[in-house]
Amino acid sequence: MYIGVDLGGTKIKIGMVNEQGQIVRSGIIDTDPSHNDKIIMRDMTVEIERLIKEEGLQIKDIKAIGIGVPGIVDYEKGSIIYCTNLSWYNVEAVTYLKEHFNIPVYIENDATVAAYAESLFGSTKEARDSVFLTIGTGIGGGIIIDKQIIRGAHGAGSEIGHMVIGENFYDCNCGRNGCFETLASATAMIKYAMHKMKDHGAASSLQDIYRKNGQLEAKDIFDQALLGDALALETVHRTARYMAVGIANVYNILDPEIIAIGGGVSKAGDWFFDLVREKVKGMTLVDSDTIDYGKIVRAELGNEAGIVGAAFLSKQA
Amino acid sequence: MYIGVDLGGTKIKIGMVNEQGQIVRSGIIDTDPSHNDKIIMRDMTVEIERLIKEEGLQIKDIKAIGIGVPGIVDYEKGSIIYCTNLSWYNVEAVTYLKEHFNIPVYIENDATVAAYAESLFGSTKEARDSVFLTIGTGIGGGIIIDKQIIRGAHGAGSEIGHMVIGENFYDCNCGRNGCFETLASATAMIKYAMHKMKDHGAASSLQDIYRKNGQLEAKDIFDQALLGDALALETVHRTARYMAVGIANVYNILDPEIIAIGGGVSKAGDWFFDLVREKVKGMTLVDSDTIDYGKIVRAELGNEAGIVGAAFLSKQA
Repeated sequence: MYIGVDLGGTKIKIGMVNEQGQIVRSGIIDTDPSHNDKIIMRDMTVEIERLIKEEGLQIKDIKAIGIGVPGIVDYEKGSIIYCTNLSWYNVEAVTYLKEHFNIPVYIENDATVAAYAESLFGSTKEARDSVFLTIGTGIGGGIIIDKQIIRGAHGAGSEIGHMVIGENFYDCNCGRNGCFETLASATAMIKYAMHKMKDHGAASSLQDIYRKNGQLEAKDIFDQALLGDALALETVHRTARYMAVGIANVYNILDPEIIAIGGGVSKAGDWFFDLVREKVKGMTLVDSDTIDYGKIVRAELGNEAGIVGAAFLSKQA
Repeated sequence: MYIGVDLGGTKIKIGMVNEQGQIVRSGIIDTDPSHNDKIIMRDMTVEIERLIKEEGLQIKDIKAIGIGVPGIVDYEKGSIIYCTNLSWYNVEAVTYLKEHFNIPVYIENDATVAAYAESLFGSTKEARDSVFLTIGTGIGGGIIIDKQIIRGAHGAGSEIGHMVIGENFYDCNCGRNGCFETLASATAMIKYAMHKMKDHGAASSLQDIYRKNGQLEAKDIFDQALLGDALALETVHRTARYMAVGIANVYNILDPEIIAIGGGVSKAGDWFFDLVREKVKGMTLVDSDTIDYGKIVRAELGNEAGIVGAAFLSKQA
């Protein structure tokens, strides 16, 4: 048995995972942002102990613990360099858990963890080389080459959402302009539609939805595009085009066998995936009749990928 | 002994390389573009035989032959998928040489070959993970992770020059807009300066140089920038900024220990390298005080990298 921890901004999901990659038992704890890292790490150990006990096991039955972190980690030192949504900086998470449990503990970026899970049990398991993109409020990336995680020399690699791919009307949180995630995420879609309505007076059914719900979601834009709303259609096509630019860049740099897309935007219909695939075809360096570039598919494991991938990080060690 | 072949658009450079990576004997043959691939491949074998004979050796003393190709290759099949400047498509180069010499033959993209040579004997030999950029008329890339060549699943990877990073006033040869090489190569510099003078009437000492020489070179632009010419300075700063955007993207995706820059633009003075380094600092995802991102250095092996890297491709097999 393995323990996988999916550290989120508002909750921590913990799962006990068997050798087949199945979650046999799981728990969720809230991460009160007013609590410091020590309290949250302590809550985490309590929950892990509860799961082990409930399963009728002892700590010696657990081969390893792995943690996926939405931030930058130092894999070798086992520390969290930073995790913005928890306001954690230089937290020695691995040392803490190792000292407590006295078993191997591993840490990795959360999108990389999900990429690894997909490559072991999900959408990319047939591929030696694959790239995983989780497209939701932002864009996270994970790179697998020869079935191995590619994390970079300082743990700062695979931040594909912060690849600059164009020019945008608003800046990224990271301070730059034109980051992939500001052009092709759910947030990017919403910001673009709102910008067009507010600053350019574009008429759209999205305006009514915004007035009614007090907010706009990517799903609304996809739905209204299907109903023929001009601004929604324009927004979807813009998103597909930039997603294609980002994917074509990944092809040109890493040339994976499969690109798997997870996160909220991956729930869009097949028509959106087809639109992206069609646009990518026109953007590859080599004619796509000459080279059969990697497939673009939906990720399969959903939210479980974070726990399963983290649980199996020891297999990479 | 090994044989390394650097296949160029106008000439083929062939070298005999010892175990220490030194070229002990070399030759050059012209590639007449009116000759088809069979004639050029035959010329290549004649030259290889001449070198072996002159060195007082026999073919059995050669461990392997490697070829670096300015184009896309199928590493596993050993064929050149395409090589634009020779107008070669699906040339079975490895099969041809293997049948002729009956020794192992390997093939790889030329920028990747140079990256490999640098990682064995040059600027990146201390690094496990490195990226090599050759910046001249275009931008070629080579990726080394864990001292291994990263070529992608279809040999179409490491085409970093065709990563789209912005919007440009002219399209790339590949058909897209905003490719790294159209924004930060020597050609990009020249096109930008010419565009500013022709289409925007910018006054500049570059105009006189262009009139006198009938052309403009990147070196002229660097030289005039140092003398204070406004357009030359603007062009250099624009180039440095886009080079920094491309390098920051490489950091965010691959996070190498060293980025080595070769090619014509790498001959610019240290002040230009310092300018690029300074701009990159402001563009990294994580504060560069928190993470000590990879060094940006000049490549060391120059033109020899093509032969040496090709010669040693067998070490990757």
